[in-house]
Amino acid sequence: MTTRNPIITLMTDFGLRDHYVAAMKGVILGICPSASIIDITHEVSSYEVAEAAYLLSQTWSYFPKKTVHVVVVDPGVGSMRRPILAEADGHRFIAPDNGVLTRVLTRESCKVRHISEERYFRKPVSHTFHGRDIFAPSAAHLASGVPTAKLGPRIGNYLRLTFERPNRTARRGWTGAILHVDHFGNVVTNIALADFPHIEDQPFEITAGFRTIEKLAASYAEMPPGELCAIVGSSGFLEISANQQSAAKILGCEAGAPVEIRFL
Amino acid sequence: MTTRNPIITLMTDFGLRDHYVAAMKGVILGICPSASIIDITHEVSSYEVAEAAYLLSQTWSYFPKKTVHVVVVDPGVGSMRRPILAEADGHRFIAPDNGVLTRVLTRESCKVRHISEERYFRKPVSHTFHGRDIFAPSAAHLASGVPTAKLGPRIGNYLRLTFERPNRTARRGWTGAILHVDHFGNVVTNIALADFPHIEDQPFEITAGFRTIEKLAASYAEMPPGELCAIVGSSGFLEISANQQSAAKILGCEAGAPVEIRFL
Amino acid sequence: MTTRNPIITLMTDFGLRDHYVAAMKGVILGICPSASIIDITHEVSSYEVAEAAYLLSQTWSYFPKKTVHVVVVDPGVGSMRRPILAEADGHRFIAPDNGVLTRVLTRESCKVRHISEERYFRKPVSHTFHGRDIFAPSAAHLASGVPTAKLGPRIGNYLRLTFERPNRTARRGWTGAILHVDHFGNVVTNIALADFPHIEDQPFEITAGFRTIEKLAASYAEMPPGELCAIVGSSGFLEISANQQSAAKILGCEAGAPVEIRFL
Repeated sequence: MTTRNPIITLMTDFGLRDHYVAAMKGVILGICPSASIIDITHEVSSYEVAEAAYLLSQTWSYFPKKTVHVVVVDPGVGSMRRPILAEADGHRFIAPDNGVLTRVLTRESCKVRHISEERYFRKPVSHTFHGRDIFAPSAAHLASGVPTAKLGPRIGNYLRLTFERPNRTARRGWTGAILHVDHFGNVVTNIALADFPHIEDQPFEITAGFRTIEKLAASYAEMPPGELCAIVGSSGFLEISANQQSAAKILGCEAGAPVEIRFL
Repeated sequence: MTTRNPIITLMTDFGLRDHYVAAMKGVILGICPSASIIDITHEVSSYEVAEAAYLLSQTWSYFPKKTVHVVVVDPGVGSMRRPILAEADGHRFIAPDNGVLTRVLTRESCKVRHISEERYFRKPVSHTFHGRDIFAPSAAHLASGVPTAKLGPRIGNYLRLTFERPNRTARRGWTGAILHVDHFGNVVTNIALADFPHIEDQPFEITAGFRTIEKLAASYAEMPPGELCAIVGSSGFLEISANQQSAAKILGCEAGAPVEIRFL
Repeated sequence: MTTRNPIITLMTDFGLRDHYVAAMKGVILGICPSASIIDITHEVSSYEVAEAAYLLSQTWSYFPKKTVHVVVVDPGVGSMRRPILAEADGHRFIAPDNGVLTRVLTRESCKVRHISEERYFRKPVSHTFHGRDIFAPSAAHLASGVPTAKLGPRIGNYLRLTFERPNRTARRGWTGAILHVDHFGNVVTNIALADFPHIEDQPFEITAGFRTIEKLAASYAEMPPGELCAIVGSSGFLEISANQQSAAKILGCEAGAPVEIRFL
């Protein structure tokens, strides 16, 4: 009764003021008219590959298997950097080979291909807009049922970024970093519940900017107004938040700044 | 020949820079792959329940019956506030029980349920992101055909906000307030054509900021450039506007500021 | 196996904070539930008809034939300006008769109609929101299969804007203008490859702001960091760009500013 349309997600740093994202969608629908196109975000900071990698890691697994995820944050467009296609957990990922897929590519089962079959490109291929001419049409052909192997050969030497993880800097202390500041001013650190499974049971203090926070809250609502608290966020990372206020503004901190955690 | 896909609308204060909205869409499509997801807006001012209530009241009725409208402006996420489901005029509404549905819930025919059936939640339910874990999956199950009664029991004691309406402050005068300032700087007041049906026939003056406006225009185009005019807007409320300029900037006024209307 | 849903694209200057775009989508889906609605952009600068005309020219042809493109940048809403429907190259365009379709209407094969059949309007038609009451429902009826001729009679006297094109100002020199500055700060000029087909083969210098640029790059990646270069952009126009920097900021130039090109 209902049709299952193929899903293509798009993430770029193109913004929404220009025609770039719409041109990609037009190309996709020209090849795969039944595609359901979902915007992840087009407001990745310009050229910020690490930010895009984080945002992708927080979204792709919520989509159904077979989804094609396209990420175009591509400072090297027009250079020799390759377009790649990765497969992991039944999902497909299309992006430039610049590390933006790193958080996906760490999975053991991941297969990576160099997208080189020009038959699936839009011609002529411009030197400045591979989103429209390479990434969008390749994704649309995949969504239409073209097997991944047709797009190009398997490769092993693709780029993976080394993301900073917390370093042990004292017997009971680690130094980490701010991964992301979200729209509400929540400060997401790179201290993962997966790496520190005892974090919810053992007292700690966390320092960022000029402030040291000791209280771990279970939800925003239980934080006293205006008070900074630590919280295990929906992303699985330790966050510093304030009830209905911007923790980032209170701390004066941005992505990249160091944080220190010390278990008591 | 064409399929009627179920429609789900989304309104949040999440912004579009982060992954939050996309995670909700992924969850929805995982449960109801045929859903047509329409963004109302994700730029509600953070935690502004009254603004979201206004924007919802201006959109839902244009959609086809059976549409599921999801509103996540939810300062109390993680607290005891309940998730609720309302039915009115053949539409379904899913939101936190914080008054954001007030302008819908005033309809007599409205039925409200406490969404409590955890079978329809995404597990584990986080304390910070009910949009992804409760609201999105509940909406998707409804859109897939689950009857509303399965989501939880009827309740009567849900929260309704009291929105300021104009008060009579003189024999021929009322004091109202600015409800909303839109993208163009049009100043929407809470003076409704429905409450003042003679407004288009009887001369009046309206005061906001330091300015008193006497002219009622029928369209923006008939306003002399740079002159403030009153107009009955597409929302059914009296607005103060200026042809191709921001009336809000000229007045120096924001949502919440008082306006006075005096019939002559 | 997959259904081909009719496609409607939307471009407005409404922004995404208000309910205006969503109201249009609701009206469309009420009439044509199977429509696939694609946003081109809603961030056209307020009332900037020329900017909308440029953005439309850069997107429509990437969509499949039969797409209905709706453009609502409409400073004259509520005045006598007519709503029009144009057909070109198998695409349909719906917009106010204010020149916003100019770059489409220059095609010889273009047919234009005055949208006058009120049967296809939403009633009552407001004086301030024809996007919701005229343009959206007309587009939806077209997408549902209503023939274009039903919407109104052919007309010839529709408005076309004269867009500035480069003027010859020296034996080997032309004076053009900046057409658009994009999200990355790329400066798009009105010097088209189509008008200057030898531009990639013959040395030239281009002056904008206080800077004269001599280097023509083939891609952003080959530009030395921080150096301004000319490049033939994906739009087919000459652009001034800087690798991972905003050329517009370096030049201190905006849309409308003059540029001079001199062939050496």
